[in-house]
Amino acid sequence: MKGLMQDWPLLVHRVLDHAARWHGEREIVSRSIEGPVHRQSYRDLDRRSRALASASKKHLKAKKGSVIATMAWNGYRHMEIWYGLMGLGAVVHTLNPRLFTEQLIYIINHAEDQWIFTDLTFLPIFEKLQDKLPTVKGFVVMTDRAHMPVGTKLSNVICYEELLGQGDEGFAWPRLDENTACGLCYTSGTTGNPKGVVYSHRSNVLHAMTITGADAFALHSRDTTLPVVPMFHANAWSLTFSCPMAGAKLVLPGAKLDGASVFELLDTERVTMTAAVPTIWLMLLQHLEQNPTLKLPYLERVLIGGASCPEPMMRAFIETYGVDVIHAWGMTEMSPMGTLSRLKGSMLDLPPAEKWKEKLKQGRPGFGIDMKITDDKNEELPHDGKVFGRLKVRGPAISSAYFKGEGVAAFDADGWFDTGDVSTIDEWGFMQITDRSKDVIKSGGEWISSIDLENAALGCAGVAEAAAIGLPHPKWDERPLLVVVRKAGTEVSKDEVLAHMTGKVAKWWMPDDVAFVDDIPHTATGKISKLQLRERFRNYHLPTA
Amino acid sequence: MKGLMQDWPLLVHRVLDHAARWHGEREIVSRSIEGPVHRQSYRDLDRRSRALASASKKHLKAKKGSVIATMAWNGYRHMEIWYGLMGLGAVVHTLNPRLFTEQLIYIINHAEDQWIFTDLTFLPIFEKLQDKLPTVKGFVVMTDRAHMPVGTKLSNVICYEELLGQGDEGFAWPRLDENTACGLCYTSGTTGNPKGVVYSHRSNVLHAMTITGADAFALHSRDTTLPVVPMFHANAWSLTFSCPMAGAKLVLPGAKLDGASVFELLDTERVTMTAAVPTIWLMLLQHLEQNPTLKLPYLERVLIGGASCPEPMMRAFIETYGVDVIHAWGMTEMSPMGTLSRLKGSMLDLPPAEKWKEKLKQGRPGFGIDMKITDDKNEELPHDGKVFGRLKVRGPAISSAYFKGEGVAAFDADGWFDTGDVSTIDEWGFMQITDRSKDVIKSGGEWISSIDLENAALGCAGVAEAAAIGLPHPKWDERPLLVVVRKAGTEVSKDEVLAHMTGKVAKWWMPDDVAFVDDIPHTATGKISKLQLRERFRNYHLPTA
Repeated sequence: MKGLMQDWPLLVHRVLDHAARWHGEREIVSRSIEGPVHRQSYRDLDRRSRALASASKKHLKAKKGSVIATMAWNGYRHMEIWYGLMGLGAVVHTLNPRLFTEQLIYIINHAEDQWIFTDLTFLPIFEKLQDKLPTVKGFVVMTDRAHMPVGTKLSNVICYEELLGQGDEGFAWPRLDENTACGLCYTSGTTGNPKGVVYSHRSNVLHAMTITGADAFALHSRDTTLPVVPMFHANAWSLTFSCPMAGAKLVLPGAKLDGASVFELLDTERVTMTAAVPTIWLMLLQHLEQNPTLKLPYLERVLIGGASCPEPMMRAFIETYGVDVIHAWGMTEMSPMGTLSRLKGSMLDLPPAEKWKEKLKQGRPGFGIDMKITDDKNEELPHDGKVFGRLKVRGPAISSAYFKGEGVAAFDADGWFDTGDVSTIDEWGFMQITDRSKDVIKSGGEWISSIDLENAALGCAGVAEAAAIGLPHPKWDERPLLVVVRKAGTEVSKDEVLAHMTGKVAKWWMPDDVAFVDDIPHTATGKISKLQLRERFRNYHLPTA
Repeated sequence: MKGLMQDWPLLVHRVLDHAARWHGEREIVSRSIEGPVHRQSYRDLDRRSRALASASKKHLKAKKGSVIATMAWNGYRHMEIWYGLMGLGAVVHTLNPRLFTEQLIYIINHAEDQWIFTDLTFLPIFEKLQDKLPTVKGFVVMTDRAHMPVGTKLSNVICYEELLGQGDEGFAWPRLDENTACGLCYTSGTTGNPKGVVYSHRSNVLHAMTITGADAFALHSRDTTLPVVPMFHANAWSLTFSCPMAGAKLVLPGAKLDGASVFELLDTERVTMTAAVPTIWLMLLQHLEQNPTLKLPYLERVLIGGASCPEPMMRAFIETYGVDVIHAWGMTEMSPMGTLSRLKGSMLDLPPAEKWKEKLKQGRPGFGIDMKITDDKNEELPHDGKVFGRLKVRGPAISSAYFKGEGVAAFDADGWFDTGDVSTIDEWGFMQITDRSKDVIKSGGEWISSIDLENAALGCAGVAEAAAIGLPHPKWDERPLLVVVRKAGTEVSKDEVLAHMTGKVAKWWMPDDVAFVDDIPHTATGKISKLQLRERFRNYHLPTA
């Protein structure tokens, strides 16, 4: 027996329909690449997205299944492309301008991008790359005629506003199956080539519904939201879907992400909710410290994800500026939100120190995200906050495969996706990342968290940076080596470092040796490259081995 | 090109999975039919729902597609049946004990109910009806052995706790298609037989996701929620789905819905959010007025729907008790929520009187509900707050048909459901019901709201009750007749009533005549029966005709 409810597929254009019809007057404020602050409404976004879709269909031959790339900051034109092309059934491939040239070439060719929409900022990149991109038919420059580049070496260049001007603002969206692909975003692992995550209309809509929820981002129509997190970084954490869904005013920061520029938008636009990685907030907090008269009177909550939120940062927002912090964790493969550190009703009577401890964890999943930790035999581990295991997730907005069938090892037969993270889950259901599974040190069948070792070492005077890796050991399989960069002008010794760590980690976790180096290698995104470090210490012999 | 996201059907049991796994410790507090307050956790609910499903499969032969009825108050056992049977793929048919006997017989036979789960309260009803219910195999009495009725005339009676005790708490839910039917609720129109609304797993889950949203009920895990609105009244407005989804503590009131009993639960359980029809709140406010020391310190918001919220009621909650009011409108066919009067960000600068005017309207739809008003030619009418037309709705949790193909006239070719209501929509997108479409008076091709006429007459001294109906007119097609019941001991005249109304409604809306009667007929739910009234005045001759 079937239910007798309406057939209403979950399509991304319905989010825009809703915003235009019930929140049509609400603003999208963009710091434009050309300079001035630009203002339009959701009604305008709808009108212009339809025109762009119509013109792209006619002039770019864009259709269902066409993969079309953008390299752009957060701005109104990026949103028009987003909704216009997705509405058409095309797949929007967001390119991260911070990737290395070789990665960009690989990704564009792997995706077989047909066109690239680009901000003025990125023309020099494509002038250099264009000869290596055989599938790309041309470039749409996201500006008006007056700002089009003169004497560019790019071939087949189209002016965005001229293209859009040829479109039909009353264009009717085609009816699509809700499982149709609409977005493509590559995730650059530390090993191997980047892998493509393919979002569907259904996954984006369901994820945005979860995200607007009162225990997630709690987005409503009285919010003014500043997504500092870029649209090329996993859907701007869904905010470019969930804000129109909620009727929230959107403030899009363009290319200027420094502390002063972000503060200016927070203040002049009276932003109530904002989201970014810790690096951005470090810049903002430094700007505020340097200008002690500045306050954050409108901001109610800040979402911090992408990397663990340090306690001093959380305390600064909450205690100094009266802004609540929502600590979050997710992955490109998760659309991207996984967990949020929102306290539960049953935790309200915990002592303050306990509450802080929980808020600093990555938190718990909302409806539509299931999560478990397992041992190496795929047996589920208990939620005791101590045992850690591989973190696996399941849900309707989580990858079941990568583009073109790569990276199959991440998906198990029961449909769970292995995040590659290692974590604990406590009795409240709060998850805490303890390591990456490839970085964890396997000693005598048990796991040692490399991150915990590093944190224990970091407090030692004279230690500027520390990294722990596992090295082969005849008896224990692996044992930890701690690699340390000394602070300039200090001469901290192995014994001093180990003495400092004693009592902070289990006795059998203690490193078998400490090696001092001048520098520790980092990835493009600033994380310690354990891969390169392991390579560098490949022939190192532990004194205990 | 398909998205590469996981196949994760939207099934009702996933709501319970989520609650048990991430909010397992959270309480469900029930005022039991046997007397004492009963407490269990979401973990218990999960365990017992699985046991009930397993036992029902084995002993009641319940399976996918089985229609099984409940006649029960809001309580933990009702929720176990709800999740247990839906999880099995069966269809839970909630019976409204307030229906007339003939309607109950019709509904049970039309649905072909196989079993009836009943609270102790309702045994006398079924003792009388059982011989007229050929499809019903027996009755499961929702109590334990100690409280089972002695000497009941009901045949084939099973004790709920004994049945459940034979089930397997580790029962695994079958994998179902998300469009599988899971609920059946009859809506009793004022004309014809009741019609069955068939909910699917998908519609209930999507609706609950909308409902938990920050601009809808804003349910989160720190909430304690008291659904006074019964589970047999259109899914308790989704609260029995959306509270477990959010991890909110649930307080279920059982059979006692008077002011003192509702207050007691609000106070002792520290309820933060509650929902019911205006009648319930009238009883609560009267109880509070009679006991001036009583306050509502924990309650943050009250949801009022089912009938229009009177301004004095809204002012009492907001101004006297500091409790926000969310005025809502919906229908059984809409799962049931349609609109909520949550002010938007763009309305925050309106003068207070304007805000009050908007809050008293039925409000605006959330994502997943589309809405329009049309004229008799199905042309959409503008959102100006003045023009009124037929209110039509569309969305994934809105009926596409009634059970067994009845009532086809309510569904148009484009997929819109005609609510039978007549309303305006203003420039903010706020909808206000002005009439039922069958009660509106069609005069010279234009519509006159019978409700507006009644409200204009009600303020006149000497008028106890008033009802407006359209009577045939040779020139204007229809013209209004106002039917009035005088207050006891007064002798208000036609001219006095009309003089009072002058200026309150458009000149051409003024009734052509006023008829004085001793009583006005009402329906089972207390509304004026325009149908009976039109019947009574069938041969009445308007002086203008």
